[in-house]
Amino acid sequence: MSDLPKRIHITEEGPREGFQFEKAPIATDRKIELINALAETGVSQIQAVSFVHPKAVPQMADAESVVDGIIPRDGVEFIGLWLNQRGLERAIATGKLHLEGSIALTASETFLLRNQKRTFADNLAQQREMAAAYKAAGIPIERGSVMAAFGCNFEGPVPVERVVAQVAEIVAIAQEQGERIRLMNFSDTMGWATPRGIRAVLEAVRTRWPDLELSLHLHDTRGMGIANAVAGLELGVAHFDACVGGLGGCPFAGNRAAAGNVCTEDLVFLCRDLGIETGIDIERMIEAAKLAEDIVGHPLPGAVKSGGSLSQWV
Amino acid sequence: MSDLPKRIHITEEGPREGFQFEKAPIATDRKIELINALAETGVSQIQAVSFVHPKAVPQMADAESVVDGIIPRDGVEFIGLWLNQRGLERAIATGKLHLEGSIALTASETFLLRNQKRTFADNLAQQREMAAAYKAAGIPIERGSVMAAFGCNFEGPVPVERVVAQVAEIVAIAQEQGERIRLMNFSDTMGWATPRGIRAVLEAVRTRWPDLELSLHLHDTRGMGIANAVAGLELGVAHFDACVGGLGGCPFAGNRAAAGNVCTEDLVFLCRDLGIETGIDIERMIEAAKLAEDIVGHPLPGAVKSGGSLSQWV
Repeated sequence: MSDLPKRIHITEEGPREGFQFEKAPIATDRKIELINALAETGVSQIQAVSFVHPKAVPQMADAESVVDGIIPRDGVEFIGLWLNQRGLERAIATGKLHLEGSIALTASETFLLRNQKRTFADNLAQQREMAAAYKAAGIPIERGSVMAAFGCNFEGPVPVERVVAQVAEIVAIAQEQGERIRLMNFSDTMGWATPRGIRAVLEAVRTRWPDLELSLHLHDTRGMGIANAVAGLELGVAHFDACVGGLGGCPFAGNRAAAGNVCTEDLVFLCRDLGIETGIDIERMIEAAKLAEDIVGHPLPGAVKSGGSLSQWV
Repeated sequence: MSDLPKRIHITEEGPREGFQFEKAPIATDRKIELINALAETGVSQIQAVSFVHPKAVPQMADAESVVDGIIPRDGVEFIGLWLNQRGLERAIATGKLHLEGSIALTASETFLLRNQKRTFADNLAQQREMAAAYKAAGIPIERGSVMAAFGCNFEGPVPVERVVAQVAEIVAIAQEQGERIRLMNFSDTMGWATPRGIRAVLEAVRTRWPDLELSLHLHDTRGMGIANAVAGLELGVAHFDACVGGLGGCPFAGNRAAAGNVCTEDLVFLCRDLGIETGIDIERMIEAAKLAEDIVGHPLPGAVKSGGSLSQWV
């Protein structure tokens, strides 16, 4: 337990990854309502939208309008996701988003082909182009990300060596632009991670890059989400992506690919008990989770919002 | 991770703790159907029924009929729960159950008063009587249990010292009958446990009684169930109670007191990944979970049954 961080930073991804998954259309003003409610919880970063092709992700077709409705707030960064230069340009054009240059690789080529229609080689070339675009736009490149880092529904287990090799490629792409990656995110895109898998990947990365800050993007597809977060915390991970209410899919839908992200308020509950500061008011996050349930119109899998926060005893 | 057990023993409690929680009546033959299906999964112990007053727990009024329908199977112990001598007599009378003498105390007096209408002193006296009854019936007293060991909705956090004191009382009650407690169960009755709380209690107990086998009865009320199981495993815990499908309550019901038990097949998934033998065929347990959902008529919270077992990759 000696490596537990004193404080973690949570990126709230419910409005982007959560809503993106929902099949029924969600009104723009309700998306804005949730984002602005989340901004009141104390969370320091909110991924509000993605700038992707509306044919691929119809739910994000109103990204600009959503960003337009965000009420800026001191201490809260609103960020967006994009996969190509066109998306980056749309994000820049809003004038309201915090822009981070991120180099993202994917550890499963089969998934990469299905998800982004690119081979490993295509993706490397495209990420090099994105790095040059960030440099040209004056956007720092401090963040890297390895997707499908713990396993793939199409390829099976992902070798740790491949993840380490992709981290090396990400670090190198940034260096080519004279930039230095500060934070490396590992995404359990298909919910394969277990506490053992988390340790295997993070220990290998930490051994080779002891100065790299580590970040986890976890799903709760097989019920391991919070246990995986504990494994990360014990290795000093101080950055987590999470979704209010466990948005991002419903374990009851029988959709094997898409059970929800690790739940923000459940993660905050865990951290409070461990004496780890999150900056988040758990009661406000629970209220936001209930709002999210109202907006999507079905129950969300988070536990603390129904089980109770125990705040009266803390 | 050095204390991870090589093998754990799971007591499947779905038919008792799970069904007991359900408000709608469940037909006797469907209860029997689930119990017999569970007996085919490789699990070595199934808590099938409780012998309590039918006014208090109407769902268990047919306990004798349920036991009557159980198909005995080599390697599977069928057990029951009782709270008093009358219940013990009913269990003995079935002639089909594996009988274990268990001394059970409760670490919250407020909860004890609400749940069993007894003070600490009443309960100690009553457990002494039960110990004498076990002795008289020739039933070994090898098991102890501390309920509400991690916190109480009515009293708040439970001091570790109180749990340790109750373990000492349980050990003493058995000794008075010339018996020796082998296994001590700690029950997170109201879903308060966290990995930190698990460690605090178990380390204190293990320090004082290094030879005592430890057992955990966990709920997933606040999403910590599997993380708590990991904390237990890392301290060498080799006995767990669990409920197929996460029976025992629904986190979506908004019932703060009653979210489900830790889910058997999710626990098996975790253990398989950690190289810990459970003896359970995860696919059969998933089939039993789906049967349990069919029987109770609503979705159950377990994750692996919808997220997928990944067995094809193991």
